[in-house]
Amino acid sequence: MDAPLITFLSDYGHLDEFVGVCHGVIARRCPAARVIDITHAIARHDVRAGALVLAGALAYMPPGVHLAVVDPEVGAVGRQARLAVAVRTIEQDRLLVGPDNGLLLPAAERFGGVAEAVEIGRSRERLQPVSRTFHGRDIFAPVAAALAAAQPLAAVGDPLPVPQLRRLELPAARVLQRTLTAHVMRADHFGNLILDASPVQIAEVGARLGAPLAEEVAGRSFPARYASTFADVPPGELLVYEDANQMAAIAVNRGSAADHLDVGRDDELVVRAG
Amino acid sequence: MDAPLITFLSDYGHLDEFVGVCHGVIARRCPAARVIDITHAIARHDVRAGALVLAGALAYMPPGVHLAVVDPEVGAVGRQARLAVAVRTIEQDRLLVGPDNGLLLPAAERFGGVAEAVEIGRSRERLQPVSRTFHGRDIFAPVAAALAAAQPLAAVGDPLPVPQLRRLELPAARVLQRTLTAHVMRADHFGNLILDASPVQIAEVGARLGAPLAEEVAGRSFPARYASTFADVPPGELLVYEDANQMAAIAVNRGSAADHLDVGRDDELVVRAG
Amino acid sequence: MDAPLITFLSDYGHLDEFVGVCHGVIARRCPAARVIDITHAIARHDVRAGALVLAGALAYMPPGVHLAVVDPEVGAVGRQARLAVAVRTIEQDRLLVGPDNGLLLPAAERFGGVAEAVEIGRSRERLQPVSRTFHGRDIFAPVAAALAAAQPLAAVGDPLPVPQLRRLELPAARVLQRTLTAHVMRADHFGNLILDASPVQIAEVGARLGAPLAEEVAGRSFPARYASTFADVPPGELLVYEDANQMAAIAVNRGSAADHLDVGRDDELVVRAG
Repeated sequence: MDAPLITFLSDYGHLDEFVGVCHGVIARRCPAARVIDITHAIARHDVRAGALVLAGALAYMPPGVHLAVVDPEVGAVGRQARLAVAVRTIEQDRLLVGPDNGLLLPAAERFGGVAEAVEIGRSRERLQPVSRTFHGRDIFAPVAAALAAAQPLAAVGDPLPVPQLRRLELPAARVLQRTLTAHVMRADHFGNLILDASPVQIAEVGARLGAPLAEEVAGRSFPARYASTFADVPPGELLVYEDANQMAAIAVNRGSAADHLDVGRDDELVVRAG
Repeated sequence: MDAPLITFLSDYGHLDEFVGVCHGVIARRCPAARVIDITHAIARHDVRAGALVLAGALAYMPPGVHLAVVDPEVGAVGRQARLAVAVRTIEQDRLLVGPDNGLLLPAAERFGGVAEAVEIGRSRERLQPVSRTFHGRDIFAPVAAALAAAQPLAAVGDPLPVPQLRRLELPAARVLQRTLTAHVMRADHFGNLILDASPVQIAEVGARLGAPLAEEVAGRSFPARYASTFADVPPGELLVYEDANQMAAIAVNRGSAADHLDVGRDDELVVRAG
Repeated sequence: MDAPLITFLSDYGHLDEFVGVCHGVIARRCPAARVIDITHAIARHDVRAGALVLAGALAYMPPGVHLAVVDPEVGAVGRQARLAVAVRTIEQDRLLVGPDNGLLLPAAERFGGVAEAVEIGRSRERLQPVSRTFHGRDIFAPVAAALAAAQPLAAVGDPLPVPQLRRLELPAARVLQRTLTAHVMRADHFGNLILDASPVQIAEVGARLGAPLAEEVAGRSFPARYASTFADVPPGELLVYEDANQMAAIAVNRGSAADHLDVGRDDELVVRAG
């Protein structure tokens, strides 16, 4: 039988021992578990970026337990407090563990949505005393490890109605009269802009690979090209392309589209056949 | 039976292949061993920071072999030469491997102290020729792997009297007349200051959670609050809190306490009820 | 039986999820495989640096599958297109997988050269659709995993004549009349310069450990010392030394030789006994 698998994504970075300590906590609770680090370089507290990277990456991960921690509200109490949750997806029975701030749901939706959810803030698996700042170590990692050790969801938390799970408000690209109105979901660290649009929507504006496009940002217009790779346009020029996660994206060959267009997260772009 | 476990902490960083090469050396000597990287981002040559992080992290690691390398004197000869050592702790029989510069002892003391020590600079397990600069690869990793492969301590080195192990000189916080005199042990990369004081000592000055405190640094006085989390004070203000390793620490909400107080390692602070 | 082993080197860095996604792809195809990350901090697109680090590191890695991706031409088509390859070495039957741009061959030569090669760009193991930008995920990782799962080389690609594999053009140090003409192969991130010369060649110019040397760069002359470790020369002074991979290298004690000499990759240096 294969070792139980846990994937792990967070914004902990690699400058501290946080990731290593969570690995230790997992190894103590489920020595057989194998851990794959998806990334720990999510921008600090950027729940949406974490949610998008998680959703894109899970397609390439074996089924198992998927631990994710991007948690700006950790330690808050009262009205600001967020729940800690573990959920099971409808397809493939994947188990996702993390804060109830929307981080897990786009990934769960790739597997048919959430079949069952539990609240784990007072899980019998938690490490006590639970610190105010490090729920990754004290709640999320031990619960993930318990699930990897074949504990059922109902044994690690209290039932939570699925509709009560918090969702991210995400923009939605639309095509109207062969005009695509899209939004910047995130910029990667090269300045490439990942949009909320699909290549299908690019096709709906009437563009074909190699054809010119016009992009409009805040009333300014920029010429671009619909291309399959950076080198298809001259250095310094804009292209719209399908990224490795099958999303529409904008780049500048050997440059930064974020700088070139002066846009950032949630900004709106209009794309037309050129 | 579970795989033998090695934890690994160093100041090697992730810009070079040093960590990966040590993993390879371990896998060749003990293919069954599993390695957990605690962190490799200890500030270069900062033995004390490495010792404190190791001591804090081992509580969360399964028993096993604990390899640690922060080694400013590597390659020195004559009077400056440091020994290379492996030690066994009194409780839990944990095995620690690293340079004899004080790095291992605070962690060993969490497990009752050192029961047995050997000098491994000429271990039969070392890779020859031993380089002048990379004892992690040539001495420490192969000895750690041999111990993970169930070699007894006596087989990997020469007996060393425990009292001869080098200790770090660490400052010691004290409470006198409801006044705490503490010292900065290290600053983390957010500028939070970890002190050598415990929350018990904060309580001894008469402070309760939520109460005001006065901090004094080099004759200057700063108002602060004893709080359980950053958001309990307004942005830009000082708090004293219990960190995730149960030590007293000082922070500025959304700021840097190191900058705010203009203090660094070993600097003395005085804390009184406000 | 030990788990099959895959080592992994790339220029993907740790700011994105690329490395984690490749680990997931490997775990899906060969759940038993264990992965050792040699490094992912090769300078972006620096094929030569990747080739040299890989060749130096493999001596410390157990035999297995060695995946390496530094791939500036990924996604190019037509005349610029590079092949994707997997090769088996003459000694130890090591399997190397990566782009056919010279990255793999210096490592293969440490194991007697290439016995057999296959082209894997249309491997039945590839993930479809193959993206234009992420062949690590779509071609190289799944093929490496298939080989770790004991698929024979012939089953994962099409035969490729060994002489057709692309080689890097590397400079070659030479000693003439007790004068060593060497070149900078790469600078590490401390500014130490790794040369294409061996300690044997340093000996051939008549230098012994501890003796003065003269270095000449572009007509300018610099005094140095042949030393075994940095601390053997005063801070700020130049030394020539044998690095941990048994190559001749130049450093400044507590400084940067790259800055001091104002040289970079491929620059020529002349070394004479002083």
